[in-house]
Amino acid sequence: MSADNMQIPYKIYLEEKEMPRQWYNVRADMKNKPAPLLNPATLQPMTAQELGNVFCDELVKQELDDSNAYIDIPAEILDFYKMYRPSPLVRAYCLEKKLQTPAKIYYKFEGNNTSGSHKLNSAIAQAYYAKKQGLKGVTTETGAGQWGTALSMACSYFELDCKVFMVKVSYEQKPFRREVMRTYGASVTPSPSETTQVGRKILAEHPGTTGSLGCAISEAVEAATCQEGYRYVLGSVLNQVLLHQSVIGLETKAALDKYGIVPDIIIGCAGGGSNLGGLISPFMGEKLRGERDYRIIAVEPASCPSFTRGRYAYDFCDTGRVCPLSKMYTLGSGFIPSANHAGGLRYHGMSSTLSQLYDEGLMEARSVEQTAVFRAAEEFARIEGILPAPESAHAICAAIDEAMKCKETGEEKTIVFGLTGTGYFDMVAYEKYNNGEMTDYIPTDAELEAGLAGLPVIEN
Amino acid sequence: MSADNMQIPYKIYLEEKEMPRQWYNVRADMKNKPAPLLNPATLQPMTAQELGNVFCDELVKQELDDSNAYIDIPAEILDFYKMYRPSPLVRAYCLEKKLQTPAKIYYKFEGNNTSGSHKLNSAIAQAYYAKKQGLKGVTTETGAGQWGTALSMACSYFELDCKVFMVKVSYEQKPFRREVMRTYGASVTPSPSETTQVGRKILAEHPGTTGSLGCAISEAVEAATCQEGYRYVLGSVLNQVLLHQSVIGLETKAALDKYGIVPDIIIGCAGGGSNLGGLISPFMGEKLRGERDYRIIAVEPASCPSFTRGRYAYDFCDTGRVCPLSKMYTLGSGFIPSANHAGGLRYHGMSSTLSQLYDEGLMEARSVEQTAVFRAAEEFARIEGILPAPESAHAICAAIDEAMKCKETGEEKTIVFGLTGTGYFDMVAYEKYNNGEMTDYIPTDAELEAGLAGLPVIEN
Repeated sequence: MSADNMQIPYKIYLEEKEMPRQWYNVRADMKNKPAPLLNPATLQPMTAQELGNVFCDELVKQELDDSNAYIDIPAEILDFYKMYRPSPLVRAYCLEKKLQTPAKIYYKFEGNNTSGSHKLNSAIAQAYYAKKQGLKGVTTETGAGQWGTALSMACSYFELDCKVFMVKVSYEQKPFRREVMRTYGASVTPSPSETTQVGRKILAEHPGTTGSLGCAISEAVEAATCQEGYRYVLGSVLNQVLLHQSVIGLETKAALDKYGIVPDIIIGCAGGGSNLGGLISPFMGEKLRGERDYRIIAVEPASCPSFTRGRYAYDFCDTGRVCPLSKMYTLGSGFIPSANHAGGLRYHGMSSTLSQLYDEGLMEARSVEQTAVFRAAEEFARIEGILPAPESAHAICAAIDEAMKCKETGEEKTIVFGLTGTGYFDMVAYEKYNNGEMTDYIPTDAELEAGLAGLPVIEN
Repeated sequence: MSADNMQIPYKIYLEEKEMPRQWYNVRADMKNKPAPLLNPATLQPMTAQELGNVFCDELVKQELDDSNAYIDIPAEILDFYKMYRPSPLVRAYCLEKKLQTPAKIYYKFEGNNTSGSHKLNSAIAQAYYAKKQGLKGVTTETGAGQWGTALSMACSYFELDCKVFMVKVSYEQKPFRREVMRTYGASVTPSPSETTQVGRKILAEHPGTTGSLGCAISEAVEAATCQEGYRYVLGSVLNQVLLHQSVIGLETKAALDKYGIVPDIIIGCAGGGSNLGGLISPFMGEKLRGERDYRIIAVEPASCPSFTRGRYAYDFCDTGRVCPLSKMYTLGSGFIPSANHAGGLRYHGMSSTLSQLYDEGLMEARSVEQTAVFRAAEEFARIEGILPAPESAHAICAAIDEAMKCKETGEEKTIVFGLTGTGYFDMVAYEKYNNGEMTDYIPTDAELEAGLAGLPVIEN
């Protein structure tokens, strides 16, 4: 299906004038829309007004908009995009040769910016709308730190205050991520902290706690809603985030179109769904409109298998159960992946848009074990030069599997996967792998049942 | 002098077919050639045969070649270059706006590869020639770890064994760099070690030592020369390294030419000279041939001021005094920058080619203090998005100074500087700066005299 190899360079860059000027909103082409967020108190769909207490007005509009297919990217955001985008679509010639596969492998590499991942695509948009609304600043939580870094970069650019609540154990174990955020002027507070009511409560109840993402979310939401001129922002899961991340897929499609390449398989890693949702959006759009068919594969960790072993139901987005409920594939908001798990993508739930698409059979999902993920990461690093983030390596792992199937069958399939970021701040996990100390963990059915038993009972 | 702004994108990428296919050897255009390396035992110029005991044959040829202006880049190296090159030439629109300067600022960004710097340009060439000669592997030393990382990536690609001697204090304090090298399959040994004669001797004499670059060089050279099928490789200072790094300058010039831009000022940071020498080479060539004039500025740390306060004389390249002597600007092979110094570029000497050019007044040099360097680094990171390596930030600092002079005079000068790499593995230094704990250190005249007093006495 693809064009003549000889004409395709190692890296396809769009020219500046070829960059997308609109985001694509896949919900507009969905016959069955994703279910709305519910107010946890009333169990009624969240209104724009209710959401506006937590999020910027323009972002609330984007969150609720399931009818407009294209939304203009403001000029200020386009300018920022031009500093680190377009990202390259890379032909993995060396990997193909090493695998001796007839498959043609491409990856969209989002790691060439200081945040180290695709997260910056949405961070800059969210910061822009906060600035435009005249806000003083934004608050957020961060675990590993990629999202916090991206947001601190975006806020520094628009001269917005940025308050990041970083899970205490990460704050202490990942001081470098913390320092990148501080260099960009963000204040980084280890969570739980004494600076919020919910933090003080948790500290009183659990004096020695090293924190959790759920607790950090609760603190960030409180800090935003209790301070004049602040709003809360989130780096994944939400519809607005998938909208901003559509720039990944739009660039990918434009680069492929330039060379007449039509992919057979599109692969992305899936935690909350921001990268996967962005990468696949224009392809999924074609599929929804009946114009073309693609195999689309979500790859998740075997130790946190929302799609492959979770349930499609309404659940809380946060462990603290203070945020709205979302209908999604979930392992239960109380589910916490094994401490053994080093490979990222730790979220218990999934984007409601992707959940709906998966539920309708429009995409596949598979889970992979972390030693296989790091084996793929190492192989990829050695032959393609880029040291991938563990999250991204889930997609590499599945792409190699598909390429090896082509080797067996002799099929010349074209595979595109998302390489979401670099692993420079994940060397503790790589060290564990290098030392042969990494093992796999797959939750038992009983463990998953326990997590799902706590799901709220809601008619839907 | 430059083209209309409106036509110039944020990032100028060459197309694959526009990439340089030859390295440029600036020595060919020098009327006064750089002085030859001397054998430390005989004080006679090193012969090809003598050099061949330490370096690969083809690299010895390149080291001694001062007459061929262009040398073909082998196809295998070109293929590797295509994985991470061309690097972008970036127009710093946001920085210009922030500074409110009429100057036009461009930077050639070499940090978008996993080694995080330009070092990979020479590492892949040196690994290729080692492989071609049928060697089993190479040895080297590394301090901060950028060169060791680049070499381990290159060796992994060509399936060569890579033995890195890493200064013990860095080995312990920079475990992440070490793990990147191990992920690429390199063996990383803390130096001094029990694995070499010189290491055992040093350990016996100084049991608690945390090592030095000079000691690591001695161990790496011993490991290469005492093992069948191994050679030693070096990441800076040498003529061959400047030759490989000319790809930076050639790409820069091609990108500028594409838009009819002629720079007024070219700025690079200088430690051993690999980046600076590579960046300026084609421009210096025009200057040497009398075709065009440019201001060329080397920027070095005030705490290690080889150009600005050193002496142009023959000196040992290593602290251990086992390597050949080179005629260069030097602070004395015994000079060690203050422990206070966090900003990179710690080498006591300088490329002999650049030393000769500087001695003839063909380029300028200036030194900057480290707090000014980190201030520039932070300002640049916040407005241009990229967190620079402290080394690269020396060039940023000088570029901002020149741009501010243009603001005073109203001149629309075009400034090009080399952004050699990213600072992701330098967060300990950034943390010091963020905490307000960084201070400056300028060696006294007496301290520099002490270092220079140890220079070997050689007629030249």
